[in-house]
Amino acid sequence: MAQQLYVTIGRQFGSGGREIGKKVAQALGVPYYDKELLKVAAEKSGLSHEFLTNYDEKPTNSFLYSLVMGQQNVLSGMRGSTVEQLASQAQRDAVLSVAEQGSCVIVGRCADYILRDKPGLVRVFICADDEARVKRICQRDGLAEKEAREKMKKMDKTRSAYYAFHADREWGAADSYDLCINSSRSGVDAAVELILRLCKV
Amino acid sequence: MAQQLYVTIGRQFGSGGREIGKKVAQALGVPYYDKELLKVAAEKSGLSHEFLTNYDEKPTNSFLYSLVMGQQNVLSGMRGSTVEQLASQAQRDAVLSVAEQGSCVIVGRCADYILRDKPGLVRVFICADDEARVKRICQRDGLAEKEAREKMKKMDKTRSAYYAFHADREWGAADSYDLCINSSRSGVDAAVELILRLCKV
Repeated sequence: MAQQLYVTIGRQFGSGGREIGKKVAQALGVPYYDKELLKVAAEKSGLSHEFLTNYDEKPTNSFLYSLVMGQQNVLSGMRGSTVEQLASQAQRDAVLSVAEQGSCVIVGRCADYILRDKPGLVRVFICADDEARVKRICQRDGLAEKEAREKMKKMDKTRSAYYAFHADREWGAADSYDLCINSSRSGVDAAVELILRLCKV
Repeated sequence: MAQQLYVTIGRQFGSGGREIGKKVAQALGVPYYDKELLKVAAEKSGLSHEFLTNYDEKPTNSFLYSLVMGQQNVLSGMRGSTVEQLASQAQRDAVLSVAEQGSCVIVGRCADYILRDKPGLVRVFICADDEARVKRICQRDGLAEKEAREKMKKMDKTRSAYYAFHADREWGAADSYDLCINSSRSGVDAAVELILRLCKV
């Protein structure tokens, strides 16, 4: 049997990482997981889809965590766990579970770190120039420029903190990945081609 | 006339950026500049090759800079300049000068920032896993593992500081570049192919 292929895609908010990931999955003929992971996580963990959506890629509040850890948590099986930890553990299990099924493309959720020991892993990061991202966010989310810019900064910060906490690496640093592409320079199609080329190595 | 092409290559120490850059230049049939820039800089500035080699990609000592700036520097044309600034200004002029001659590949020296307004710019960063880099440095520079690891860390820090000072961006951060490649994952030949593919966009 040919080796499985796991393409993980980290992305700046509004960089087009989702679109690129979907096209890579189509070209490879493998499943694509982004928000789809939440459904798997909900099914496997018994936590509600709404709960998981609410804590999706949100970093643990370390202050809250300290408070909880300092007290006796009486909920059996949740001892010392913050809600963010429960959510990220469910996502982690979901990533491992879909990888067990075979080759796939997974966007975000520290999948690159969770699958770090798998052969056939291709860790991608998509970024883009701020202006291109703001434009994309305005169009996609129906926001004014100022709001889009604020949302962009907030989402990047949140993703960066989530990654730092759960993957213990720097989000968006070249040496955390195998391939980083600025989609403003490459466009979507060339970005897809570059990723597919690396999948063949 | 076809548009000029400027491929700039930032690189972690020992990542194989030089080898990749040379192969890209060969494939494109354009000149390659790494240490070669020092010769151009010496010819244009009148500074000695030894002087420029000594301050090659070394960050300005900001403490020394403050001291100098606080005093009246009596050397005409060098008012307020540290030796590091003289060297980096000569390199800057050399980068602009070779770009004037036409398409080329330039390794390091903040060429990506210096040429930031040129159409046809492709900003590449090459990284690699620490173990692969240490192995390469041992072989290339004839060092023991411990010395190679120390040199690797020191050179990365120096390059990072030089870049932060002169380019005002983060060295090795994905969004400072158009394409970042981990050469441990891709190998040299696929890295060259990926860069050439982006040159066609």
